Amino acid sequence: MIERNIKILIAYDGTNFCGWQKQDKGRTIQECIGTALEKLHKHPVRLTGAGRTDSGVHANGQVANFYTDIQTIPPERFAPALNSILPQDIRILSAEETTSDFHARFDARSRTYQYRIIAGRPALPHERLYHLCMRRHPSVVRLNAFTRLLHGEMDCSTFASPKDQSESRYRYIHNAVFFVQNDSLVFEITANAFLWKMVRSIVGTLLFYEEKGALPVEFAAVVNSFDHAKAGPTAPAHGLFLQKVDYPPKK
Amino acid sequence: MIERNIKILIAYDGTNFCGWQKQDKGRTIQECIGTALEKLHKHPVRLTGAGRTDSGVHANGQVANFYTDIQTIPPERFAPALNSILPQDIRILSAEETTSDFHARFDARSRTYQYRIIAGRPALPHERLYHLCMRRHPSVVRLNAFTRLLHGEMDCSTFASPKDQSESRYRYIHNAVFFVQNDSLVFEITANAFLWKMVRSIVGTLLFYEEKGALPVEFAAVVNSFDHAKAGPTAPAHGLFLQKVDYPPKK
Repeated sequence: MIERNIKILIAYDGTNFCGWQKQDKGRTIQECIGTALEKLHKHPVRLTGAGRTDSGVHANGQVANFYTDIQTIPPERFAPALNSILPQDIRILSAEETTSDFHARFDARSRTYQYRIIAGRPALPHERLYHLCMRRHPSVVRLNAFTRLLHGEMDCSTFASPKDQSESRYRYIHNAVFFVQNDSLVFEITANAFLWKMVRSIVGTLLFYEEKGALPVEFAAVVNSFDHAKAGPTAPAHGLFLQKVDYPPKK
Repeated sequence: MIERNIKILIAYDGTNFCGWQKQDKGRTIQECIGTALEKLHKHPVRLTGAGRTDSGVHANGQVANFYTDIQTIPPERFAPALNSILPQDIRILSAEETTSDFHARFDARSRTYQYRIIAGRPALPHERLYHLCMRRHPSVVRLNAFTRLLHGEMDCSTFASPKDQSESRYRYIHNAVFFVQNDSLVFEITANAFLWKMVRSIVGTLLFYEEKGALPVEFAAVVNSFDHAKAGPTAPAHGLFLQKVDYPPKK
């Protein structure tokens, strides 16, 4: 039987999830969508996500793919079909048929994360689950003097968790910048891929050295120390959003 | 003993509350703050709120007052003292000593509510608890042709719940307008006071007649029917925020 490969765009509120990846204990996004797919298919369906977001991390643009033997549902109708089964904290934003060899994780060219901060005032209760709240106002100019050093092919060991088991700690950073959006301060970073907890370690380190009044050359020394002990405290998960996963144009 | 009258500014995420007012069943904001005040005072403390928000309604600017016999806490320190006890979905934004005759409810000159809408796209999961989500894009111009009719001293019976027990259904509307803010559509209304569920009934009626393509004169006829059966469906609670309570300048 010919199976179609379906690519889905996913958003979720990570607050009440133990992250993306299926595990023995705790509710995960992969498991919830997997259960919904199984209800539609009457058999288990393997779901491949582009990025394994951690416990508490949100997504507005996660991508995943699965193979379906259902011929009666047009590809784009998988979005409403899944949404009618899924809990409200996961939404399938769109679904489309893709090439049979498409792999959400291995084919991803880059991932973009945003880290959202409320600075200089208390977070309002409806903002608290989606922003880091800081009492002080960091200098966006100073922060961006640091972020300019995060560019290109880099050994990211400084920002690697001691438990990170990646074979290589080199990653290619396309862009990293702070900007003010509406009422919040946003850090946006795009790279080919990220180490475990890398974005949160970068955010924590940027804010830590900004508060210390470090010079860009001092921040560069931290980056080039390849020593996680020199990183700042890892920023909490609830400010982080997986915003976008980018793929090469279809052949 | 001389008791000081403390005025507090309160924000809350109404999602997991059965509204402001203390009741037998269910968690309420008044009860949570009352419990925190009792912990500080070692005896029950009466808390008077400016507006009794309904189940699921949020606040960024609720006001309340209470009398305290504690002389050791400077008035403004009641905010951090209470926040250290309160759950994260209630925050005391500020506290100050006010005149001994100040009454948060009776002295309020006006209340301002906002109703927040995501229109023309699905709400993202992190937006879902704080916005009404509509598939279509209503016309802001047409909506504001209606809102201009909501002004001044008015018999608001059209927007009164059948269960409303107010002696008078006249209210003075200072301002009512739709505007686009960032990525959402906001309805803001200020009046001396509101009937039970009045803002949500107004929002539902405005959207209902806008979708029907009604003319302003037809909307005026609905308002002047004083007949709740002509109102549109009451909009859900989770889009509504009590933004501000206004008081006369201190004598």
